[in-house]
Amino acid sequence: MTPAQRLEAFRGELARLGVDGFFLPRGDEYLGEYVPASAERLAFLTGFSGSAGFALVLPDEAIVFSDGRYQEQMRGQIDPAIWRIGHQYETPPGAWLARHAGDRRVGYDPRVTAGQDLAMFRAAGVTMVPLPRNPVDAIWRERPDEPAGVAETQPERLSGRSTASKIAEIAACLRAEGQDAVVLGDPTSVAWLLNLRGTDLPCLPIIRAQALLRADGQVILFVAPDRVSDEVRAHLGASVTVVPPGAMEGVLRACGGLVVRLDPQRVPVWFAEILSASGATLREGTDPCLRPRAIKTQAERIGMRQAHRLDGVALCRFLAWLDRHGIGETESAAAAHLLALRRASPECAGASFPSIVASGPNAAIMHYLPDGRADRRIEAGSFLLVDSGGQYRCGTTDVTRTVWVGAAPPPEAWRDQYTRVLKGLIRLSRAVFPAGTPGYRLDPLAREALWEVGLDFDHGAGHGLGSYLSVHEWPLGFTRRPVLDSIEAGMVLTNEPGYYAPGSHGMRLENAMETLLAVGGGDGAFCRFDTLTRAPIDRSALRVGLLDEGERRWLDAYHACVLDEIGPLLPPDDAAWLGAACRPI
Amino acid sequence: MTPAQRLEAFRGELARLGVDGFFLPRGDEYLGEYVPASAERLAFLTGFSGSAGFALVLPDEAIVFSDGRYQEQMRGQIDPAIWRIGHQYETPPGAWLARHAGDRRVGYDPRVTAGQDLAMFRAAGVTMVPLPRNPVDAIWRERPDEPAGVAETQPERLSGRSTASKIAEIAACLRAEGQDAVVLGDPTSVAWLLNLRGTDLPCLPIIRAQALLRADGQVILFVAPDRVSDEVRAHLGASVTVVPPGAMEGVLRACGGLVVRLDPQRVPVWFAEILSASGATLREGTDPCLRPRAIKTQAERIGMRQAHRLDGVALCRFLAWLDRHGIGETESAAAAHLLALRRASPECAGASFPSIVASGPNAAIMHYLPDGRADRRIEAGSFLLVDSGGQYRCGTTDVTRTVWVGAAPPPEAWRDQYTRVLKGLIRLSRAVFPAGTPGYRLDPLAREALWEVGLDFDHGAGHGLGSYLSVHEWPLGFTRRPVLDSIEAGMVLTNEPGYYAPGSHGMRLENAMETLLAVGGGDGAFCRFDTLTRAPIDRSALRVGLLDEGERRWLDAYHACVLDEIGPLLPPDDAAWLGAACRPI
Repeated sequence: MTPAQRLEAFRGELARLGVDGFFLPRGDEYLGEYVPASAERLAFLTGFSGSAGFALVLPDEAIVFSDGRYQEQMRGQIDPAIWRIGHQYETPPGAWLARHAGDRRVGYDPRVTAGQDLAMFRAAGVTMVPLPRNPVDAIWRERPDEPAGVAETQPERLSGRSTASKIAEIAACLRAEGQDAVVLGDPTSVAWLLNLRGTDLPCLPIIRAQALLRADGQVILFVAPDRVSDEVRAHLGASVTVVPPGAMEGVLRACGGLVVRLDPQRVPVWFAEILSASGATLREGTDPCLRPRAIKTQAERIGMRQAHRLDGVALCRFLAWLDRHGIGETESAAAAHLLALRRASPECAGASFPSIVASGPNAAIMHYLPDGRADRRIEAGSFLLVDSGGQYRCGTTDVTRTVWVGAAPPPEAWRDQYTRVLKGLIRLSRAVFPAGTPGYRLDPLAREALWEVGLDFDHGAGHGLGSYLSVHEWPLGFTRRPVLDSIEAGMVLTNEPGYYAPGSHGMRLENAMETLLAVGGGDGAFCRFDTLTRAPIDRSALRVGLLDEGERRWLDAYHACVLDEIGPLLPPDDAAWLGAACRPI
Repeated sequence: MTPAQRLEAFRGELARLGVDGFFLPRGDEYLGEYVPASAERLAFLTGFSGSAGFALVLPDEAIVFSDGRYQEQMRGQIDPAIWRIGHQYETPPGAWLARHAGDRRVGYDPRVTAGQDLAMFRAAGVTMVPLPRNPVDAIWRERPDEPAGVAETQPERLSGRSTASKIAEIAACLRAEGQDAVVLGDPTSVAWLLNLRGTDLPCLPIIRAQALLRADGQVILFVAPDRVSDEVRAHLGASVTVVPPGAMEGVLRACGGLVVRLDPQRVPVWFAEILSASGATLREGTDPCLRPRAIKTQAERIGMRQAHRLDGVALCRFLAWLDRHGIGETESAAAAHLLALRRASPECAGASFPSIVASGPNAAIMHYLPDGRADRRIEAGSFLLVDSGGQYRCGTTDVTRTVWVGAAPPPEAWRDQYTRVLKGLIRLSRAVFPAGTPGYRLDPLAREALWEVGLDFDHGAGHGLGSYLSVHEWPLGFTRRPVLDSIEAGMVLTNEPGYYAPGSHGMRLENAMETLLAVGGGDGAFCRFDTLTRAPIDRSALRVGLLDEGERRWLDAYHACVLDEIGPLLPPDDAAWLGAACRPI
């Protein structure tokens, strides 16, 4: 079908379902950042394949919305004769829909719609109508199959904590708040709670499943039983019952009279609608697994160090290769080489996200992915930004290095910028702060050196990291808006300042850090960070004179540590390269 | 009457009014930080004279609540045989009242009760009943008279902006939000809007008045007409009508059908109750005057500089006197001498708050005021903390200097603490940041040097300053909680890190700063600060080696500026002292 035919068929389906319009988000039934091919409904209908966005369809209007990252991509992928393009922060979608829909009925699929989004459209005055099935599915002839791999366990030697212990903690949390049960809509919460992993998504090692946890410690895991082997059932224990997703509704309808907690950001409204209709009392509350899983167990912390050591080997080998052979290679070839180096470790399960390898002006596009259209060749006299990460059974990594390519040094202004980005990285790395300080109060530390000369970067300075789980483990992070959690010992975050000059060049430096208790506080508990990443920081663009003494010492100590830990694990040529890259400044 | 008799008489009055209990806040009809003697109802009934707190009375229970600052003071002032003492953050008052009151009816005076507080008790399940009069007034025989001084004008050469212009801006703000009127409950907002001042309170140069501003630019000013001279009426102009407070109710009852905005923190619930009963639609919204008045006009900025110059003369003379004659003087004698030096300027209308002069361990008590009971003598081998400020017709000041008394140097650890407090002051003084950055993101800059060694201070790093108005001009400030406004050019704030070791010693350094646009930004507008305060920073406790080069340069440049501006205005002996105090390190 052509795009025009798809839209016409889709509108036909809407009419059959008795509505005039439809809200189609990009997300799936699990509301996650990563979506399998079987759930890429927005891409199927509109052609737009970005990781965030939604479509609004009316009889005489059709528009795709996304944020600033994707405006250019939408223009490249969407047929403007059929679909309008909207920027969701410049054109408030609620007001748009209210104006164009008027009194007409706009359908939504409760299974893929978050409570927050539905509330937004209803608050704008739109008549939103839940549908029993997703109208895209009726017209999607060659829809790929849902992922169907079997569930795996994350053994206690890696998770550091039994399923029973985690269930007990969350159940106690419910009892303390007078709640009888919680719906866990986020499969990464389910993965953490039950020490389960899987192969449903290329970069996120989970099995897509939801659960109902009761205050008495009983858990109902909604996943196809044939995906759960006897061995995994034994691991789950007697308090966990496996129920097919088709039987979810029946289980929820039996919750009348219970007080049930749901996170409006992470649980599709379908759950709230069924529970409400069945006489349950709903309580909005953050997913109770988020904070406990942010505080890594000792085994997880050891595992993260090991993962970063393995990752360091791949990174150092890649940087050595880049130094010798990079010029003339395409961005995508470099990305492929880096992935191959990671996969050389048997512990590596793949990438934690699609690698960003961005040459020259591509590095200023903040969510750039090398693909057929824009694949540049690496050339002398430019920065190359490489942001990548790996999934290892013992931990997840995410690291960025920016390398100046070629022998001739960069312009002075660019050296100044690069050095100030490094100063920001170092300042945040060396921070000492009271335990419980929220990340948004530390975020400015990564910016001060840039602010001094009127520069800044338009993203947060870091995010939480999962343990063989999400590479973006929210709500933890260094952000500009005051919405995220406070930082405690045991948490793992990235530290990633950058600078971007659109059309010209860009740079970012990113390390992962573990939060430790600082020794010798006077007034209560203080924390500091310990850097986990093991890869040299390119010095060709550095203005050493702009670093103060403490910063120079930090850099030399960091490089000494990288050489000490990774050098012995490298083949001789790469080890020699690393020795030179890590020499004291 | 004895305290017991007062409470018995009070309970009698409650019974006459048909309620079982009462919520008595410390605040008056204007919900301000400063309250005239005529409105000190809490102190009359309980003996407690602190600036924050409230009492809850039931037939068989009576308790006074306040925060951490006042626990010791309450124990000294309240008779424990009659009143219990509560810490409002350790014992949530809503829950306390719900538990002790049960179903019984608890009265409140809507004219002195903020919407937030009423909502808190109601949310806890207490039956709160509005009373037509305050039961304290019925038993307060020798109640002082309300302040009755006449209104004064703040001329345009000092305010920099006409009343008409300010009214037009706020009225436009209402129209933009679809509101027909706003109740201005805060007399400092009324003062700013109408360029009025007065003498109702010792440290705050206002006339206590409230106003109703309509979206068409008409203002009804609620104040006794005999307090407003013909000259002031002419200044106010034709769009302002003066109405006696007794006629407020009638005016509000005529607002049926209007959309009226009220700030639940700053407007007593009496307004909401009358408006609601009269058919007005209420909209909760921040007082619209707060942000405009935070951005000082050019005349106000010039006036603040002049005020700080005059203040600098008094401070420098005081510090010279302290150096020569301080040892053996009492704290209160020193405070009196400083006030006398300020008043030596004809432009000085008095103190902006009661001076804190704290010697030795008194400096660790964060809201210490020298009074008869604790008045220490200044002695060698201790820190003296002096936090004071003045009201000048052209501006308001607030400054803290900490001086090491005596020839022998302090212990190394104390020198380290003092130097780190200074490093925090300098770091915040030198900050460059994107315009619009909220204060809570800059607050950590004042703490980092202390955090490095596991130390911190338990208050925000600064607050907004009014222009011949409030010394604590909220919501602007450097805070730990993310509740305050963003910082723009033209705003004036204090910068006040400190360190406190209870039972031992304490220190604080405070300057006022104006916010300017920084020159030469790359990415949008950036701001920086310019220090207004003109007083030397004591160096006897300084460890110069702990300051980096940039900090030493800042300190020398600051002292050169103080000497340059203030030296010529001092008598010869004091000028010589200043020359020595300002020599380069």
